Amino acid sequence: MPEVTTEIGLAAVQMEPRIGAVVENIARSVAMATEAAERGAELIVLPELCNSGYMFESAEEARSLAEDARTGPSVRAWAALAANRRVWLVAGLNELACGRIYNSAVVIGPEGVLGLFRKIHLWDTENRFFARGDLGFPLFELPFGRLGVFICYDGWFPESYRMCALRGADVICVPTNWVPMPDQPPEREVMANTLLMGGAHANGVFIAAADRVGVERGQPFLGRSVIVGPAGWPLAGPASADGEEVLLARADLAEAVRRRQLNARNHLFADRRQDVYGEISNLAERAASR
Amino acid sequence: MPEVTTEIGLAAVQMEPRIGAVVENIARSVAMATEAAERGAELIVLPELCNSGYMFESAEEARSLAEDARTGPSVRAWAALAANRRVWLVAGLNELACGRIYNSAVVIGPEGVLGLFRKIHLWDTENRFFARGDLGFPLFELPFGRLGVFICYDGWFPESYRMCALRGADVICVPTNWVPMPDQPPEREVMANTLLMGGAHANGVFIAAADRVGVERGQPFLGRSVIVGPAGWPLAGPASADGEEVLLARADLAEAVRRRQLNARNHLFADRRQDVYGEISNLAERAASR
Repeated sequence: MPEVTTEIGLAAVQMEPRIGAVVENIARSVAMATEAAERGAELIVLPELCNSGYMFESAEEARSLAEDARTGPSVRAWAALAANRRVWLVAGLNELACGRIYNSAVVIGPEGVLGLFRKIHLWDTENRFFARGDLGFPLFELPFGRLGVFICYDGWFPESYRMCALRGADVICVPTNWVPMPDQPPEREVMANTLLMGGAHANGVFIAAADRVGVERGQPFLGRSVIVGPAGWPLAGPASADGEEVLLARADLAEAVRRRQLNARNHLFADRRQDVYGEISNLAERAASR
Repeated sequence: MPEVTTEIGLAAVQMEPRIGAVVENIARSVAMATEAAERGAELIVLPELCNSGYMFESAEEARSLAEDARTGPSVRAWAALAANRRVWLVAGLNELACGRIYNSAVVIGPEGVLGLFRKIHLWDTENRFFARGDLGFPLFELPFGRLGVFICYDGWFPESYRMCALRGADVICVPTNWVPMPDQPPEREVMANTLLMGGAHANGVFIAAADRVGVERGQPFLGRSVIVGPAGWPLAGPASADGEEVLLARADLAEAVRRRQLNARNHLFADRRQDVYGEISNLAERAASR
């Protein structure tokens, strides 16, 4: 067994799930994650809802494509891959639990399922189908470092990065299905990646975002998956806007903690002024009621 | 008197203050702000510490260049300009108050000084000279919209944007003195502007950042002043890395509030999950003590 270090291969799998085609989606996700493992990845991120597709026509359809996070067919296939290749996976899952469905990410290691993240901030019609995340931002202790997770629109909220990083995450894995924003200038990198770069820099964390591609029932997706270092700059990608692709970067996760000490006098966490920020929760209440 | 609307000329003055040359700095800042007013600006931002310069050799030098925020020579010159041209200024000021000095920004309108912001997060050797900001993130109600302020390294903390935006700011004015970061790839836009763009987008606010240029006692500054709209994209700039320049953009500040409603179901503030974020203050305490 190889020595455990903090330096790993970190992969983001950009793929095109097909709505409703669970068997094909499992096969494709396993094939691409296997390619990532063969190229040296230990930690592999798959897109949001990569078992089911995204553009549900009804609550019934969404529910019919959901599965249990421990016994469902996608999770079993991914767990087999993780065990065989001795890798860790973070995969977007349409999850059925206690009669509700969640837009979730399942974290799987060689010994099986380690836990779940459930999307905290739901985008647009997801509110019709999914229950809001009720597990907060859990931290996963892996042999090579500490992992946080969020999904897509969660990345619009600086609190998502803060929750993961303050809890101790060295790397945040982001299964996503970015959709075009109306004001995106075509000549500029997608705003999602600006948010990820700034979030990585301001929190001193690695971020690996695996997006989907393709057009599903008229909805185009952005691709542009990216792996960002704790200084905020891309280590791999952004990937293309429309092709399936495995992004891979070498990442020494111990660099995240070091990076937060910006100089002899400044530390990204120690410099926070919680004494000044305390008012945010009151402000938030008032802002939401305006 | 012209009708008051929410649409204004918004200017960022990129200039080169000279250390210790208060009289020259006043003249230069007044000349450049006058140029901005003549080109149609109503709200004009000047760089951090533009009365005194930045690279103090001692606490005594820093203090000798500080002035009172209501009666000092720089503030009186800026107030005269604001009255004559009927404009609003946000200017970085080495401020002396009650025996302490602060890295401050003074907000001045046609009727005089409206108030102060004092830098909350001090960078590197500033900790030797300045007291930490003790006024929080005040909101200034101007005839055309609501103004928040922060300075330079404050922009590294997502809480700075949140405090201003949740309190109701339509525009955040940022006097700054960006210094090079060791890991900045030369072919990419400066990380400071990535943070500003992401912060503007995630909070639905205009941001106008006025940086300085030049090399002072061996310390180079970055320039690249920028005015960003509430979708996160630059409206003017980034300016050059080394030249003095007035950036100007037309900005309808009412667009900020509209922009936060992303679609029929999503609003940047209403979608916040304060029920989930509540733990941040506890996490912060633990993270800071690690």
